[in-house]
Amino acid sequence: MKHIESESNASLKQWKKLHTKKEREKSGTYLIEGPHLIEEAIKSGAKLQHVIIEEHFELNESWLKEKFALWSVPSKLMKQLSETEKPQGIIAVCEMMDQNENLIKKNGRYLLIDGVQDPGNLGTIIRTADSAGLDGVFLGEGTADLYNGKTVRSTQGSLFHLPIVKADLLEIVQQCKEMNITVLSTSLQEAVDMRKAPEVEGFALIVGNEGAGVQEALQQESTMKVKIPIFGSAESLNVSVATGILLYELQRNRT
Amino acid sequence: MKHIESESNASLKQWKKLHTKKEREKSGTYLIEGPHLIEEAIKSGAKLQHVIIEEHFELNESWLKEKFALWSVPSKLMKQLSETEKPQGIIAVCEMMDQNENLIKKNGRYLLIDGVQDPGNLGTIIRTADSAGLDGVFLGEGTADLYNGKTVRSTQGSLFHLPIVKADLLEIVQQCKEMNITVLSTSLQEAVDMRKAPEVEGFALIVGNEGAGVQEALQQESTMKVKIPIFGSAESLNVSVATGILLYELQRNRT
Repeated sequence: MKHIESESNASLKQWKKLHTKKEREKSGTYLIEGPHLIEEAIKSGAKLQHVIIEEHFELNESWLKEKFALWSVPSKLMKQLSETEKPQGIIAVCEMMDQNENLIKKNGRYLLIDGVQDPGNLGTIIRTADSAGLDGVFLGEGTADLYNGKTVRSTQGSLFHLPIVKADLLEIVQQCKEMNITVLSTSLQEAVDMRKAPEVEGFALIVGNEGAGVQEALQQESTMKVKIPIFGSAESLNVSVATGILLYELQRNRT
Repeated sequence: MKHIESESNASLKQWKKLHTKKEREKSGTYLIEGPHLIEEAIKSGAKLQHVIIEEHFELNESWLKEKFALWSVPSKLMKQLSETEKPQGIIAVCEMMDQNENLIKKNGRYLLIDGVQDPGNLGTIIRTADSAGLDGVFLGEGTADLYNGKTVRSTQGSLFHLPIVKADLLEIVQQCKEMNITVLSTSLQEAVDMRKAPEVEGFALIVGNEGAGVQEALQQESTMKVKIPIFGSAESLNVSVATGILLYELQRNRT
């Protein structure tokens, strides 16, 4: 274990740059914070390049089998590296996963995210897609960055549990249709009450931007438009909540 | 319309204090930001004491019938008063609603919130309860402050649409049971898959703290414990998402 004491240490300066999307994309790495996320990363086989702990942090011994460089820093530097108000004493530099666009299989279950902008919403949606046992998530243009610290934290580790791929959603919709997978788009107009949607084994659900919803071109290419009934006076549901309700309704008889 | 130019104006200083829970409770007032929330407040009959606009903000003329004091401030002071990064040019000082604890009616539908700590989660849950057409929401001890700016914004105006009452949840559970309302608690142990929960007209659903869930005493007093099946590898769902899935599942045949 090497110790860093100075703010001007080159490695520390490089890791702090990972707070920006530009540097994450350039380096192909991102930061994960806290023992829970690091445990999930290791369990899933994600590659950690560096693990940085605050002095006196008690490292899980089983992690020492992993091949990463281990560093310790004083509390003051940990605070600079952390993006949370209460750092948990451990941060890792993690390599981005390979993106495999050939995910679509017969009877697969997929979520297509069209321009969800809030990183907290995106992370929560990925956690929900994991809970709902989906086979993959596709992130369309205009969607928040998967590797943003807030997104990663909101997934609670689910980003390590299922394939998540940046993609052209119109292409994914075509691929799904070629595999006879029903493509459902959320919509407020001419949409069917989700409770009346037919039960299908495979499906691709498209959810959209917080304000504008799913873009028209994707709605038009979908097999069916669905909506959640509003029984009260709210204009709409939060997109993460709506995604959860729809994913469970579409699998109402799954065992 | 009166104009405020100075940071040391006594009214402005008082309004800024409403960023703290202590001052909100002392004064019985809180801040709401943006034209949408103010429109919802007016429509619902909430009482606005003051409306503060940034110079040149175009006020909706129909609002001028309302009895509030109107103030204008320069952009610099609006930024101080606002709790958001991008102020929307209008903020109001709103009176808290009367709390009516005698809400429980035969066949009513209620949500009991036991210690949800994140204001964003609380606001989203209230928005979801409104969408699901509930008759009231009860906030137990340890739950985030309803009048916190983040909570209010996350409700998207739903806090004006249904009764929301701070209460001793054990008492509410007893009241529900006396009215033959089925009380369902979320739980991970000895819980029934929510899809097998009987259909009932009235219900009270208890949801709990982000980490600890519903407290043991409330679980024990409930009629039934329910859980959402996890088909993938996530440990749990976000509490707002879980609340949405449960509220819609419990009303699977509502028209």
